[in-house]
Amino acid sequence: VADPGLERLSLNMWTTRRWSLPEAVDGCLRAGIPGIGLWREKVAETGLESAARLVAGSGLTVTSLCRGGFFTDATTDNRRAVDEAAALGAQALVLVTGGLPSGRTDLPAARRTVTTGIAELAPYAAERGVRLAIEPLHPMFCADRSVVSTLGQALDIADEVTAETGRDNVGVCLDTYHVWWDPQVLAQIDRAGPRIYAFQVCDFLMPITADPLLGRGHVGDGVAGIPALARAVAATGYRGLVEVEIFNADVWATPGDQTLVTMAERHRAHLAGII
Amino acid sequence: VADPGLERLSLNMWTTRRWSLPEAVDGCLRAGIPGIGLWREKVAETGLESAARLVAGSGLTVTSLCRGGFFTDATTDNRRAVDEAAALGAQALVLVTGGLPSGRTDLPAARRTVTTGIAELAPYAAERGVRLAIEPLHPMFCADRSVVSTLGQALDIADEVTAETGRDNVGVCLDTYHVWWDPQVLAQIDRAGPRIYAFQVCDFLMPITADPLLGRGHVGDGVAGIPALARAVAATGYRGLVEVEIFNADVWATPGDQTLVTMAERHRAHLAGII
Repeated sequence: VADPGLERLSLNMWTTRRWSLPEAVDGCLRAGIPGIGLWREKVAETGLESAARLVAGSGLTVTSLCRGGFFTDATTDNRRAVDEAAALGAQALVLVTGGLPSGRTDLPAARRTVTTGIAELAPYAAERGVRLAIEPLHPMFCADRSVVSTLGQALDIADEVTAETGRDNVGVCLDTYHVWWDPQVLAQIDRAGPRIYAFQVCDFLMPITADPLLGRGHVGDGVAGIPALARAVAATGYRGLVEVEIFNADVWATPGDQTLVTMAERHRAHLAGII
Repeated sequence: VADPGLERLSLNMWTTRRWSLPEAVDGCLRAGIPGIGLWREKVAETGLESAARLVAGSGLTVTSLCRGGFFTDATTDNRRAVDEAAALGAQALVLVTGGLPSGRTDLPAARRTVTTGIAELAPYAAERGVRLAIEPLHPMFCADRSVVSTLGQALDIADEVTAETGRDNVGVCLDTYHVWWDPQVLAQIDRAGPRIYAFQVCDFLMPITADPLLGRGHVGDGVAGIPALARAVAATGYRGLVEVEIFNADVWATPGDQTLVTMAERHRAHLAGII
């Protein structure tokens, strides 16, 4: 049961990275936060069956499972990720698509590999009731993590996969940290419509940190202009939760319960009236 | 007079940052590099009139003057930058548009300020025969340096300014470091056509450096896939030079003449047959 004003809030477990899955579930229940975004590593620590039982018994909404993808790396077992998403009742399996193959610079080829990989995975996922959410990552991660860099590009891939497979279970995971700078972002959110399967918020801190992965902050601490993005997402009719996913060494060093207090404060201050 | 294979090569002076303008001019002449991109700071050190005489007497093509812009900062004197570009015979004045005003997150508003500022400047520049080259910067610089983040956005602004002012002296400066990741870049290069007023090359190094401004390398050292971009630029009919602009602490610590040798080697190896 959610606390008043927190009905749409979800904790992505990487925000409280030091917590195990049972600790994160308990933390959400204590804080009146009704949703949780899971990570496969954390699920594996607990064991898939135990995790699925625990989450189902908690009444929390599983807003996402992070993550499948990395299509340019043949060792990734994406069917297993789909099976886990199905077992956990996750609203979406988030796909981080992978970067350039080592030593290569043929970006168009890497992008074709991604589309092919998603098209191969989509029917398998559809048959198990799993939605695939392509997550565009900030262009600074293009070479090493995601050759999908914009929301428009993610939607183009979703369109292509749907045309090829006849399945409509491919959409996007929208993370404010990654997309705020995009001159096309509001138009592409509108285009996405019901294909926004997950909405993650975290702010973009300045200056950029030495490890660019960790320059994420609580809503309101950075430059991403999150309320305007949330308003656009709400205007599409999005009815899902708002998942807070923060990679930040200081946040990770903070006790989890305190992080959830901050998350709740920021949600009420910046987003509760909007989405 | 250019050395064989270097007919299209230009040195952006910030690549040999420790050189004064007279030293950079001499360096280019020694190395058989026929073009130079100037910086206002370096021109000011020499004095505008002396610099203009020196450059004109050298026979070098002035491929750009860096830089005007920063429209969100009212202290920037862009008319003076235009006057300098005219005096120096620069083929374009490069505009770096500026980031978000301090403490603000209204990105659409900042972008409108940029378009307004360029529209105010364009007639003044046109009357002095100066072309304005909007330079999109990598999205990681959106907050602090350039709210113009993609080539498509820069061309949209150029279109808008031309429609408003009736002047056709607004185009783009295309820097491979900033645009290589963009899924639309090849289509937008084609769209740009004759509006590519400056073409700068430098590679995108991985991993991203602690100071993200300095993660630039010689052509071939990174992931930007520069030859494919150069091929697209050549296909537009671009007849200008290819300016090497590298911000990198190791390159700056290298003797200038050695840097020019490396530039020439890389140009011959990767670009001379293409553009």
